[in-house]
Amino acid sequence: MTYRVHGMSVSGNCHKARVILDLTGQPYEWIEVDSAHGGTRTLEFLAMNSNGKVPVLEFDDGRVLPESNAILFFLAENSAFIPADRFERAQVLQWMFFEQYSHEPYVAVARFIKLFLPEEHPRYTELPKLIERGDQALSVMDRHLASRDFFVGNTLTIADIALHAYTHCAEEGGFDLAEFPNVRRWLARLEANGVASMPNADTGLTA
Amino acid sequence: MTYRVHGMSVSGNCHKARVILDLTGQPYEWIEVDSAHGGTRTLEFLAMNSNGKVPVLEFDDGRVLPESNAILFFLAENSAFIPADRFERAQVLQWMFFEQYSHEPYVAVARFIKLFLPEEHPRYTELPKLIERGDQALSVMDRHLASRDFFVGNTLTIADIALHAYTHCAEEGGFDLAEFPNVRRWLARLEANGVASMPNADTGLTA
Repeated sequence: MTYRVHGMSVSGNCHKARVILDLTGQPYEWIEVDSAHGGTRTLEFLAMNSNGKVPVLEFDDGRVLPESNAILFFLAENSAFIPADRFERAQVLQWMFFEQYSHEPYVAVARFIKLFLPEEHPRYTELPKLIERGDQALSVMDRHLASRDFFVGNTLTIADIALHAYTHCAEEGGFDLAEFPNVRRWLARLEANGVASMPNADTGLTA
Repeated sequence: MTYRVHGMSVSGNCHKARVILDLTGQPYEWIEVDSAHGGTRTLEFLAMNSNGKVPVLEFDDGRVLPESNAILFFLAENSAFIPADRFERAQVLQWMFFEQYSHEPYVAVARFIKLFLPEEHPRYTELPKLIERGDQALSVMDRHLASRDFFVGNTLTIADIALHAYTHCAEEGGFDLAEFPNVRRWLARLEANGVASMPNADTGLTA
């Protein structure tokens, strides 16, 4: 089985699929989709995912799976990146839902506005609110990491990979990771454990 | 084991925990938390969930689990409400992440504004955008349900329970479920399969 990943390389959600495929050594082909310029709005793409979002994981037999964190879960099943313990498995999902509800809509959206929209765009007025809410999410993470090395248990799981995606490039959205020292140490720990950064991402680790 | 659910009865996210506990016959105690009036901002509550959100599932030994969809997954493991097939299990998570990212932030938030805020509140200006985005999510659901009875496979799963939570009371947020006939048939099917409505919820089925 060689998977096909339909994704945009500079999207953190898409990057998650690349990270887990690389860490688990599963072969894949990357199909670049320019979602910033209509690539997810074509009839062909909408037939794969009627919700019009990347990434989408495609199988040899044509089956498709959207949603980055569902893709992470699928590709990590039966690996060390999902805990065998039932409660820890639920905690992994807890942090992945936290990521999609309380983190990504602020941290990723601020980065999107600053990287992809011209400075005179009206969406720049959203930034102060996005920074405030994103800082709240980063604070929750920083407190949690004060007493532990990874989000769940003592090992790297897909919860870490999901939260790494938009945290390691948060400075591109205007966040100051120096305010969150436990988060910065955790990012360095993930890097030491083979979690790759996005191409050209500002990781906040060299600041 | 008797679980304790810290939740607000009129919250769809909290309702999910009640539905799966009732369907699987697991005993629980319900601790009402008035999150609309600061109940999730007390030091005691924040010690359980530093993200300040209900529901939280508490165990006999004091362990706690936040995030409604992680709670659903935990309570449904080893039951028929999570498919045994690996791909179907990932599809269940796909729809649960869709629910938290593309549905709840619009459908639930519109309902929150209309049910809990006075009509002169500035957040009423958010409603047109919330209705537009919520309608998009309901359209994705309606198309998916055109050719199937449940979201994944041929049986009721926690994907249905997660999406039921804010869909069955969507009319309270100003959505018109008559535009989504497959969604309405699916809601009636869930009701026939024992998925309870929220107390006093406007289910859209009698309209």
